[in-house]
Amino acid sequence: MTIDSTDFSQEDRQFMALAIKLAKRGRFTCTPNPAVGCVLAKDGKIVGQGYHTKAGEGHAEVMAMREAGENAKGATAYVTLEPCSHYGRTPACAKGLIEAGVVRVVAAMQDPNPQVAGRGLKMLADAGIATSIGLLEHEAEQLNRGFLKRMRTGLPYVQLKMAMSIDGRTAMANGESQWITGELARQDVQQYRAMASAILSTSKTVMIDNAALTVRWSQLDPQIQAIYPEEKLRQPLRIILDSQHKVLPIGRLFATESPIWLVSSQARDMQGYPAFCEQQVLPESSYFLTDLFTFLGKQQLNSVWVEAGATLAGKLIEAQLVDELIIYMAPKLLGDQARGLCHLPNLYHLADAPLWQLVEMTQIGEDIKLVYRRPSL
Amino acid sequence: MTIDSTDFSQEDRQFMALAIKLAKRGRFTCTPNPAVGCVLAKDGKIVGQGYHTKAGEGHAEVMAMREAGENAKGATAYVTLEPCSHYGRTPACAKGLIEAGVVRVVAAMQDPNPQVAGRGLKMLADAGIATSIGLLEHEAEQLNRGFLKRMRTGLPYVQLKMAMSIDGRTAMANGESQWITGELARQDVQQYRAMASAILSTSKTVMIDNAALTVRWSQLDPQIQAIYPEEKLRQPLRIILDSQHKVLPIGRLFATESPIWLVSSQARDMQGYPAFCEQQVLPESSYFLTDLFTFLGKQQLNSVWVEAGATLAGKLIEAQLVDELIIYMAPKLLGDQARGLCHLPNLYHLADAPLWQLVEMTQIGEDIKLVYRRPSL
Repeated sequence: MTIDSTDFSQEDRQFMALAIKLAKRGRFTCTPNPAVGCVLAKDGKIVGQGYHTKAGEGHAEVMAMREAGENAKGATAYVTLEPCSHYGRTPACAKGLIEAGVVRVVAAMQDPNPQVAGRGLKMLADAGIATSIGLLEHEAEQLNRGFLKRMRTGLPYVQLKMAMSIDGRTAMANGESQWITGELARQDVQQYRAMASAILSTSKTVMIDNAALTVRWSQLDPQIQAIYPEEKLRQPLRIILDSQHKVLPIGRLFATESPIWLVSSQARDMQGYPAFCEQQVLPESSYFLTDLFTFLGKQQLNSVWVEAGATLAGKLIEAQLVDELIIYMAPKLLGDQARGLCHLPNLYHLADAPLWQLVEMTQIGEDIKLVYRRPSL
Repeated sequence: MTIDSTDFSQEDRQFMALAIKLAKRGRFTCTPNPAVGCVLAKDGKIVGQGYHTKAGEGHAEVMAMREAGENAKGATAYVTLEPCSHYGRTPACAKGLIEAGVVRVVAAMQDPNPQVAGRGLKMLADAGIATSIGLLEHEAEQLNRGFLKRMRTGLPYVQLKMAMSIDGRTAMANGESQWITGELARQDVQQYRAMASAILSTSKTVMIDNAALTVRWSQLDPQIQAIYPEEKLRQPLRIILDSQHKVLPIGRLFATESPIWLVSSQARDMQGYPAFCEQQVLPESSYFLTDLFTFLGKQQLNSVWVEAGATLAGKLIEAQLVDELIIYMAPKLLGDQARGLCHLPNLYHLADAPLWQLVEMTQIGEDIKLVYRRPSL
């Protein structure tokens, strides 16, 4: 059903671009749902707009129809994702659009959710509504990398963050590591944390850095603050790999009352831990990390932001679990006795090292940010 | 004498920009002289243009005056470097401009050569010619980083080239290193070699890679080839650090008949080496590398392009002899058992690692190129 993009008018393009912009406002809070934006337009004028904020609250189409009221009749709906066809926590949007008298629906992309997957558009078409799909599809894909990957593979989208020197070192030989990169780079990290469904780290990182692994609203970019007020702040789930039960209920991690999962393959006594801290016991396995991410996918976590040391980084890379590398590189040389970026004990030949795909290269203060994706994605 | 840039007209700016463009054509062959371009203009029209190609051949002003002939009379001369005031291998340009009847001279910058250093402009002013200086000075500085550094400090400008993975590795643990970066990045190296007065490497690198360390004209960018014909190709001097006399007169290094210096602190028997290969014996010293570059400066080498391993790279960095890092980064992770970028055994604390200044960040094929300069320069 994908239509050649030349079939869309300049006006179509403008309204869909606005719908995508609206969708972005929901990215901090919508997990496990996708971020979706909707514009209703009639005779070239916007009659309603909306986006999805949070599971349980109105879908983008509902918000736009609410704003449009009677004006929805005869309008075209621009939606960044195919309208849903199933009755979940909210009624099916396709049905709502039909009832409101919308005459045309343009969707940026199909919803891969097996409960939708074309049914929404079919429901609309069956009701005599003109439908088309594929406008700004690439941009719509970027909005929901996490949700889309989970729907397609069952696994969350994994972003591995690393801060290093020019020569790929994360700490001095003596362990000294705070701070390699500058303040602006550290602030940049906050936006990724804020969008992630969960933050993954290890007991070692938590203990060495006394890490809180929270989103600090005050450090978000003012442009994000403008669309994401502090009172709506969502803290991502914090997942700590702690096979040896080393994380005690003390330190900055426990200072914020927000969910923590301690993961290991042996149950521990949770007495003394606050109620927001649970344990997740997974069976021992040589594929422990793959099993963990499969579990996290089942728990409806769309995306996982990883902040950890060279060991976990290497294991995730070797297990091909990383979708994106986000690298902050400070303009320093630390020398070959300093600590390395990732431990890859099974890589012996240059030709066996996969090529990552550079998708972003930005200067952030004195540092640079490099974003790489696996070529297969 | 520096004049505020607002004192220059749009026309002045255009002619100086052209003079700089012309100067760039000489950068491959002009060493040990600076690259200089000159435009002669009268009534808003160009009457002559020229640039300096090679020591012993006409200076830029002479080439431009030759083209202008009688039209030089009454013209304005735009020169990227102050016209010379001394009779060297060619007559003083300041004198030539006076005799040609030029009425105004605009120089981008003063010549720091102690034999000139303001005397050229003074000579012109004394002859009643209007002079001004400072137009596109920054761009003019970039043209001749090598020459200018040598004139100001006696030392050549040192560029250290490194090819590495994302995690700062130059070779696998077993030494496998060809090729980490892609073909386009390796071609990019050729332009730097082509502009360098000399290429510095070590006996180890020469032997392990069977390196030729020559400029391969066929691999130069077509835009460079267009202004730098193959028959004018200059091979930079090749300088090999060979303290233990390991370089034998065999291999690709000796396949091109072009000067080689073997450097050590002990004289060797040069029998069997071709005439284009000489030795340079420098006294043993804890400051051997600093002494070497002082010697190279005295030998009128403006710039040195270094291709070597982690040991020499680290020593040059520690001795603060590196002006520029040119890093080619391949989109691979090689892991922390692979070989590091530079050996810095005396660096213990993060705070002691100096901050380099990023000046360029470019994607080259699948790789990226990062150019850093020492902040103090």
